[in-house]
Amino acid sequence: MRELDVNSKVPLYKQLKNLIFNDIRDGKLKPNQKILTEQEWSEIYQISRMTVRKALAELVDEEVLTKKQGKGTFVQEPKITEDLSNPNSFTNLCKRNGKTSGGRTIKLVLQDATERDVKELQLEPDEQVIRIERIRMADDLPVLLENLFFPGHLKTILAENLDDESLYKILSNKYGLVTGNSVMEFEISECNKYEANYLCIKTGSPLLLVREVVYDQYNRPLHRTKTLIRGDKFKYISPRMKVI
Amino acid sequence: MRELDVNSKVPLYKQLKNLIFNDIRDGKLKPNQKILTEQEWSEIYQISRMTVRKALAELVDEEVLTKKQGKGTFVQEPKITEDLSNPNSFTNLCKRNGKTSGGRTIKLVLQDATERDVKELQLEPDEQVIRIERIRMADDLPVLLENLFFPGHLKTILAENLDDESLYKILSNKYGLVTGNSVMEFEISECNKYEANYLCIKTGSPLLLVREVVYDQYNRPLHRTKTLIRGDKFKYISPRMKVI
Repeated sequence: MRELDVNSKVPLYKQLKNLIFNDIRDGKLKPNQKILTEQEWSEIYQISRMTVRKALAELVDEEVLTKKQGKGTFVQEPKITEDLSNPNSFTNLCKRNGKTSGGRTIKLVLQDATERDVKELQLEPDEQVIRIERIRMADDLPVLLENLFFPGHLKTILAENLDDESLYKILSNKYGLVTGNSVMEFEISECNKYEANYLCIKTGSPLLLVREVVYDQYNRPLHRTKTLIRGDKFKYISPRMKVI
Repeated sequence: MRELDVNSKVPLYKQLKNLIFNDIRDGKLKPNQKILTEQEWSEIYQISRMTVRKALAELVDEEVLTKKQGKGTFVQEPKITEDLSNPNSFTNLCKRNGKTSGGRTIKLVLQDATERDVKELQLEPDEQVIRIERIRMADDLPVLLENLFFPGHLKTILAENLDDESLYKILSNKYGLVTGNSVMEFEISECNKYEANYLCIKTGSPLLLVREVVYDQYNRPLHRTKTLIRGDKFKYISPRMKVI
């Protein structure tokens, strides 16, 4: 068994942190694996529980470990991180995070516009919307369920074979439309049975709900998106300019 | 009893939407109040359940109503909205959202730096951090629990009477430091017992976890913040430039 060095200048809690961190790096501890309890670490390494607590608390704060209420402490699987200052397609996002992307279209329909569609997409009276519902996978695990709504006059996209890359290509090639600015909204949502089924989680689990209205190069609404994201798998980074 | 007009050009589902919307606007239906079931609406107004379903679905999508799994449909209390393109103090944020802000400092201590502190605040070896933990209230309801960490050399702020407005004023007046850019991270977190206690929610409830490193006018780290936010009370809006 490895021992901690009581004579070292490095505090014991830091030695324990390094030991756990190295075990994760070397694959001895795997993502989502439960680690020893405070008491077990304390007995095995002959250190105080306070020392263990400090080491674990820092690793939780650094998102290396995660505590689950009433279940114990686990190795945190790194979350897929989307940097809003450097937006990317889902395919590229997965690539950057070392994952293989996948996806499947669930719905591709022309439907009546809701009042939200009319307002956000600035539709003509009686104009319908194209709705594309897709499930997106990272390493075969469903991580997000997205609904895209396009103005009905773009309806020839209904005939296309849509995957992640091609959608914007079609808009550019066939319609000369490219994406411009957008406005996003972030909040928490509780998932319903339908969503839970596609995302392989329990009904009622918390999801990140991201809504976005994307404009084209002429600042006209190009589409709106409602995306439900597994909060245990995903996080967002955003720069913001000048606080207060 | 009010009736829906079957001879109107306005579709029945839109008439029902307007009726519910007006009842909320006029205060006949209050925030968080449970509304009638699909079947009850259908019986009372002699309309099909599909019509009711469509009206309720749109109102849920417009965040006027909210569905709670297994509990029914409720009037959604509007969430406090922080616009990241126009950041504001908590006090002003509440004012803009028609709420009265309140707050209480729970901790104000000088403590040893964690490795995260050292890295993000670019601390000197052995420099401590000032930790300020505060609970923030909107209309007397606790909505967020924030922890601010400042480099230890700013420790005279420990002697100050801190409320929302004064902190940045002190930094400006005493140290000539003003806030510049920042980087934020958004994710979902499960609240522990300590946090649940202060936020008056159940242990294990989902929270929005926002981490931020705020830089000063010279682009040096000024403080870092870890804020836990009630997802049922708060949402964020962010512009983003150029998608894909």
